[in-house]
Amino acid sequence: MTKKTSNKISVSFQPDGVTTTAEIGANLLETAMAAGVHIRAACGGAGTCGTCKVHIEKGEVESKRTAMVTKEEYAAGVRQACQCRLMTDLTVRVPVESRLEAAVIEQEMNTEGVPEQMLVSGWEFKPPVNKILLEMTPPTLKNNSSDLTRLRQGLRQNGYRHVAIDINMVRKLPAILRKGKWTVTATILHDSESGLTLTALEPCDTRNHLYGLAFDIGTTGLRGQLLDLNRGQVLADGLDYNKQIGYGADVISRIACCGKKNGLKNLQKAAVATMNGIISDITARAGVKTKDIAFMTVAANTTMVHLLLGLDPKYLRLAPYVPAAGAPPVVAAKSLGIKLPPKAMLYALPSVASYVGGDIVAGIMGTGIQRSEKMTLYIDIGTNGEIAIGNADWMMTASASAGPAFEGGGIKHGMIATEGAIEDFDINTQTCEPKISTIGNAKPKGICGAGLINIAASLLKAGLISRKGKFQSHLKTKRVRQGTDGVEYVVAEAKETATGKDIVLTEVDIDNLIRAKAAMYAACQTLIKSVGATCGEVEQVIIAGTFGSHIDIERGITIGLLPDLPRERFTFIGNGSLLGARLTAFSTELMDEGRKIANMMTNIELSENNDFMDNYVAALFLPHTDINQFPSVKAGLSAIKQGAGL
Amino acid sequence: MTKKTSNKISVSFQPDGVTTTAEIGANLLETAMAAGVHIRAACGGAGTCGTCKVHIEKGEVESKRTAMVTKEEYAAGVRQACQCRLMTDLTVRVPVESRLEAAVIEQEMNTEGVPEQMLVSGWEFKPPVNKILLEMTPPTLKNNSSDLTRLRQGLRQNGYRHVAIDINMVRKLPAILRKGKWTVTATILHDSESGLTLTALEPCDTRNHLYGLAFDIGTTGLRGQLLDLNRGQVLADGLDYNKQIGYGADVISRIACCGKKNGLKNLQKAAVATMNGIISDITARAGVKTKDIAFMTVAANTTMVHLLLGLDPKYLRLAPYVPAAGAPPVVAAKSLGIKLPPKAMLYALPSVASYVGGDIVAGIMGTGIQRSEKMTLYIDIGTNGEIAIGNADWMMTASASAGPAFEGGGIKHGMIATEGAIEDFDINTQTCEPKISTIGNAKPKGICGAGLINIAASLLKAGLISRKGKFQSHLKTKRVRQGTDGVEYVVAEAKETATGKDIVLTEVDIDNLIRAKAAMYAACQTLIKSVGATCGEVEQVIIAGTFGSHIDIERGITIGLLPDLPRERFTFIGNGSLLGARLTAFSTELMDEGRKIANMMTNIELSENNDFMDNYVAALFLPHTDINQFPSVKAGLSAIKQGAGL
Repeated sequence: MTKKTSNKISVSFQPDGVTTTAEIGANLLETAMAAGVHIRAACGGAGTCGTCKVHIEKGEVESKRTAMVTKEEYAAGVRQACQCRLMTDLTVRVPVESRLEAAVIEQEMNTEGVPEQMLVSGWEFKPPVNKILLEMTPPTLKNNSSDLTRLRQGLRQNGYRHVAIDINMVRKLPAILRKGKWTVTATILHDSESGLTLTALEPCDTRNHLYGLAFDIGTTGLRGQLLDLNRGQVLADGLDYNKQIGYGADVISRIACCGKKNGLKNLQKAAVATMNGIISDITARAGVKTKDIAFMTVAANTTMVHLLLGLDPKYLRLAPYVPAAGAPPVVAAKSLGIKLPPKAMLYALPSVASYVGGDIVAGIMGTGIQRSEKMTLYIDIGTNGEIAIGNADWMMTASASAGPAFEGGGIKHGMIATEGAIEDFDINTQTCEPKISTIGNAKPKGICGAGLINIAASLLKAGLISRKGKFQSHLKTKRVRQGTDGVEYVVAEAKETATGKDIVLTEVDIDNLIRAKAAMYAACQTLIKSVGATCGEVEQVIIAGTFGSHIDIERGITIGLLPDLPRERFTFIGNGSLLGARLTAFSTELMDEGRKIANMMTNIELSENNDFMDNYVAALFLPHTDINQFPSVKAGLSAIKQGAGL
Repeated sequence: MTKKTSNKISVSFQPDGVTTTAEIGANLLETAMAAGVHIRAACGGAGTCGTCKVHIEKGEVESKRTAMVTKEEYAAGVRQACQCRLMTDLTVRVPVESRLEAAVIEQEMNTEGVPEQMLVSGWEFKPPVNKILLEMTPPTLKNNSSDLTRLRQGLRQNGYRHVAIDINMVRKLPAILRKGKWTVTATILHDSESGLTLTALEPCDTRNHLYGLAFDIGTTGLRGQLLDLNRGQVLADGLDYNKQIGYGADVISRIACCGKKNGLKNLQKAAVATMNGIISDITARAGVKTKDIAFMTVAANTTMVHLLLGLDPKYLRLAPYVPAAGAPPVVAAKSLGIKLPPKAMLYALPSVASYVGGDIVAGIMGTGIQRSEKMTLYIDIGTNGEIAIGNADWMMTASASAGPAFEGGGIKHGMIATEGAIEDFDINTQTCEPKISTIGNAKPKGICGAGLINIAASLLKAGLISRKGKFQSHLKTKRVRQGTDGVEYVVAEAKETATGKDIVLTEVDIDNLIRAKAAMYAACQTLIKSVGATCGEVEQVIIAGTFGSHIDIERGITIGLLPDLPRERFTFIGNGSLLGARLTAFSTELMDEGRKIANMMTNIELSENNDFMDNYVAALFLPHTDINQFPSVKAGLSAIKQGAGL
């Protein structure tokens, strides 16, 4: 194929069947993102992760072979999308392992089944925006005070004093008052920080239409809910990938991206585009007009809030890790590019620190720890693990970088929890043969975080690995073998997998898991000790987050991820972030409690904390160097003959 | 000359020597305005006043002869600029009587010589914006709260709680704090209505530079002052015509103009362009950078405030005369198009009613009536006359449309008070010969408002006119003669005038003056009676306004414009509007007193008030039908043999 002389070329993505046009020289990954084709790009297009590999089926791209692509792959047309410049018309196939599929997020965001008693209770339904009807007497020569004065009188008669009314509102005032024949509906925002603000004024009585939105903005996915603010109901749910994924899988790569030209702007736009898509979807489904949406809440980690509001996240990742704002002011959603009327005000739940965000505050508020006498441990497990401990009187928090193992990162055959991921696992202790089950009961593609924990726990209990995480040398099974990366266990054989290759778990993978779980456990330990308590004194443990919901408690304790406490003290709440966002949209009281939580919480930086480092090193065993911290595990393991390790 | 085929033509204005280009078909008046050539246009381009007559010296325009242009004039190339469409390259001469000259405004706006004791005293110098230095400790791992939290702590340590900080400020925060190495200067706006707002944050210590502006926006002219808000000094003064003049001489024609497409927008731009010119001039002269201007105040009539802020003035002139806002919120000057930094906040002094504006509130506040025990009458004489009465405990106000006579309108040889206007006048009672003096001692061009009063009073005292305002029939002087518009008095003969024609005062002119002064006096009477007082109880009379300052009190009383009170009770304060604007920029206390005045003042609508109508009819004599209301005039006149009138 000869190179085109025109500047525009056509790119067709398979199996999506999406065709788009782009400039010669454009980046292939960016072209795919712009066309709505979701390709994984964990490193944000730096070329270092290899997750964005694609097959060039037709046409030419300019791209050197990188270390992430083998000679054989290169010869077969495999390229890293982020490293390709378009040269001619193309047909590109995105292989299954490079795709981001909607099923992932569907699964990730399922929040059903949260026990009722775990939700904050006894709060007043009183959304931060409300509508009031003002019926004014028309002006006469004897009473011809200004429209603004008349409006303020109307507000005062309804008990609203000191309402901020901006000049744009005043500009529209004469027409609105006369159109409504001196009967109008005022929308008031109640914000304990900034007081009362008139956010809308509509002719006649429009009180029947008052809607809101609650958003959980995750690094990977967004979920939004459309709320009826008169009746306190969820009308529709929507979700999508965070379009920022093309700029990097984790917050660190996105922050790095903000250092580039227009980086922050692009990331902001990507988040907003995702939100606009969800809003358009859920309003259409519920038959609600966006013009009637008056308020929205956002719960997200600190980086996501910075990116959404256009705040420079640079200092979030540089010691001493300082956010631009923990409690940013309420803003007009429209000013961020969100397709909502000017009246729709956006409130982002406050964060505590660079790595303890409004999502955590939301979850804590939603579970009512701030109203409880019980000493509660709140854990959100993920690449960045967040932990909080406290009750109505005090709260402490910390975050620990666990690494990407829980999300399938850094694991030879790791993958995110989507269809085909090995999630459940058991082993026949006699034959060492596995029994696996995958998400969606599909042919296995890889191992997700929950699967990783389940496999490691099973291998430990079956005596296949030592408490150091090393395979025992005396084993007589073909499942354990020497692989290219050292000793490995064959979880699924090539003949039964979707990839046509063996799916294995290596010692290196187990090492990575141990480091991840050690970070989480050490963080809990450090936090509990810092408040002068012992682990046993923790009265309840709340596990939040979409990943957390898939953990098997017993096995989480077996590998030493979770503390060895009576099992009835554990509860899963799923997406605490969305829960808190929704409750904030329903109640000024809870909005204030969220602020109170963020204010009362003391954050402990673990990155240079000696206690944490000691605890971390001590936790680099299964379940721990001090087995007495895990009596139930000790009892289980003592039945098994241990090898050389410890 | 053949018509041009290109769309662009060249127009040269003489004697200015300004040449500009315009589209074929463009309006000549608008072209002149755009080129900065000031042409009078009292009717706002409706074609009904004839004040915009010009000579087409070269080239062609499309324009029919209107009633305002005589056949002879038309043949000689005279056209109404507002009625001309451009057809070819042009040379246009703007005659002296159609010009607006800078001298007018220079004269009009002179505020010197206000007696010190007439100014409000004992107020605290504390501008509504101030700067504070925040010296913060840099963040550490142990104290890594967000930049916003750190800023708020810094503010709190300086006694500032609940400061509104908007998202744009938060966006800039990380860079500013680090640039200033945690030492920054905060600019705070103190507004008792909206509380405290952080309007600027600058790296390092910038406290030394804090400037403000005070503006009087008149229908005809604008005056601005550059203020040092650290030292309470006026650094420079600037003035210019209100560029809105091209859209009509008075507020009514400008309000009408807002009904046209882009009308409000054009008027808003015109006012802002005038302000920008003045700001650029006075900052350059004082060597102050506009970036250091943090605050500005505006005192203006209600219409001017509406036009500046982009508020629809439509209902100001329709009964029941309702402003959009009496007390509009503080706005960012930049948002109006004013070339100032985003931090510069604009505060417009509140108005009382459609025809009692912030200019009156400013003058009252500036003279301290709100702090005085004395019952004070405040009068601003003009086309729209505003009157207030009251003291520290109560205030009432009213406005009366006096018509344009005081500004030379509706008077055969009337003119505004610019060079060549006959201002002072005396008469030899024996010979009936006049003794005149003009502004600038130039050859007389016409009669200004003050001249009109002086001539009428002199003619009355000399017995040339009756108390009905009619010329006596028995007079033996050539100065009184039958003219085209009835009986007239020759004030200046053609040989001595700049126009080469006789300058006369007709009975019709005197009628117009009587109606104007009757409206003012009746308004005073009605207002005084409405508070249950008598004229004699008025303890002081303050005459404000640029026109007012040129009035001779004795003669004002003689014609019945001013009440016959002991002369020492009268004071002139000149431009009370600018005075009040400046004081507001210097003192939050006085800013609040302005608001208090606007709130406490009761406006009486005179347009359908029976008392006012009775008083008005009774005042249609010189000085009044009830001569006993003017004892000193009665005494003076009794020495003169009265004719048939009354």
